[in-house]
Amino acid sequence: MLCYLNGSLIERSGASVAVEDRGFIFGDGVYEVWRVVGGRLFEMERHLERLRFGLAELRIAEPDIAHPDVLSDVASRLLASGGLESGEATVYVEITRGAAPRSHQFPAAGTPPTVFMMANRFVPPDELRTRGASAITVDDVRWLRCDIKTIQLLPNVLAKQAAAERGAMEAIMVRDGIITEGSHANIIGVLDGVIRTHPTNHLIFPGVTRAVVLDIARRLGMPVSETAFRERDLPRLDELFIVGTTGDVMPIVRLNDRPVASGSPGPIARALYAEFRAYLDASCGVARAA
Amino acid sequence: MLCYLNGSLIERSGASVAVEDRGFIFGDGVYEVWRVVGGRLFEMERHLERLRFGLAELRIAEPDIAHPDVLSDVASRLLASGGLESGEATVYVEITRGAAPRSHQFPAAGTPPTVFMMANRFVPPDELRTRGASAITVDDVRWLRCDIKTIQLLPNVLAKQAAAERGAMEAIMVRDGIITEGSHANIIGVLDGVIRTHPTNHLIFPGVTRAVVLDIARRLGMPVSETAFRERDLPRLDELFIVGTTGDVMPIVRLNDRPVASGSPGPIARALYAEFRAYLDASCGVARAA
Repeated sequence: MLCYLNGSLIERSGASVAVEDRGFIFGDGVYEVWRVVGGRLFEMERHLERLRFGLAELRIAEPDIAHPDVLSDVASRLLASGGLESGEATVYVEITRGAAPRSHQFPAAGTPPTVFMMANRFVPPDELRTRGASAITVDDVRWLRCDIKTIQLLPNVLAKQAAAERGAMEAIMVRDGIITEGSHANIIGVLDGVIRTHPTNHLIFPGVTRAVVLDIARRLGMPVSETAFRERDLPRLDELFIVGTTGDVMPIVRLNDRPVASGSPGPIARALYAEFRAYLDASCGVARAA
Repeated sequence: MLCYLNGSLIERSGASVAVEDRGFIFGDGVYEVWRVVGGRLFEMERHLERLRFGLAELRIAEPDIAHPDVLSDVASRLLASGGLESGEATVYVEITRGAAPRSHQFPAAGTPPTVFMMANRFVPPDELRTRGASAITVDDVRWLRCDIKTIQLLPNVLAKQAAAERGAMEAIMVRDGIITEGSHANIIGVLDGVIRTHPTNHLIFPGVTRAVVLDIARRLGMPVSETAFRERDLPRLDELFIVGTTGDVMPIVRLNDRPVASGSPGPIARALYAEFRAYLDASCGVARAA
């Protein structure tokens, strides 16, 4: 299978970056993940806009791949090479500040960013969605620029690992008593009949799925408030679910080994998932059997 | 010049790691930097202990390089290959959780960590030390495990770059009004005649130079208090200096474009530097002309 690295399509198994790449030395880079259905990148422009925002915030030069035509073209080739033009897949792109002798400050102007891109088969966790998933809470120890999708992911790694070791799918992060988000997805709660989620600021990542799902909820006439809920609200939630690029809408039915509300996927999560899935398929030009 | 990568000494210019190395994908790794004088690693065991602490905290398997005999042997070869057995140098080692298909949780047991090591010529900034350096203050936006020397260094990169763009040597980080540390060094202030620095906890990195310099200060009978000082204390500091592996003891004489105290290196910083330098040389078996 091929991957894309700095302008070339090469065999992924042998693809490598310089040891002094600033991604490897400093975690100095950004990334994006697209959901792909039938060879089409879902919300391509929205993810790209976010990628360009990250590059601008970190002042990494914008490489060609940040242009939609180039991204589409490379993605198509990667998907074709992996036999991923039909069915479900993901496309991952990472851009770092490039390779240069180790020094904290930015390297010399003109140092080319490193661009890596790969496509992978994806199997939606539909069986788990039907049952509902479990989660744990962990302290949110991340930095204060969670709004940028950087590769500074070690706290997310540790959170996800803690969840896995307790047989849970996701770790829900809590900062100063407030629910922020998951290890790689946003978190939504239903409290007193209102859909609640942390507002977009420096403490959470502004997920594309989060935005799409909130739009759907408003369109369906559900009450939505982008107001964080607190750890102490957890026992009286009507529903809890994660929204993200690979989880779509995933009900959380157990939290810290206790049931959430009835312990079954709730009607709001189920309705939002159905609408979201229909929108995802329609956006990607896929007709699905009802 | 050679570098060490996963058990082999290879040409550094062509050395590379897999694109799916968790260092490159997640910033999932730790590092150390040793000061080297006359081919000898200063405080080798103390840095190694810290490296092993980081590996244990992150639960990355301890590779051979964490054994002092292996580290010494590889360092000697790298220093020899670079003609660095005499004079000053640094040795850098980085250990990541290894290469594996991208997934936040830890890879399969037995995935070998990636080990990279390099040596570089180092020229101490002695001229700048005589004049004194300048610094700026920046918000400390780092994560809450600054006690682990991880490669999650993007906030440090951004801080150092901000300093460089204002013609300053260092960025001093401020969290909730409290001075924590620099972009890659600890910060010491002298306030009301007392040597003050942030206590070692999750908010700062426990620098080896910091520990050595505080020991020296105590031995010299200077009053030392490991109590943080605040941003609002800055205008009335007697002295301000950074302590770190490459800066040794570096007086800060201008802060945010204003003089610190008299605007010249102070007597405490000068005395501590002289003692530190003597200890550094003696530890490395180097006799220096007085």
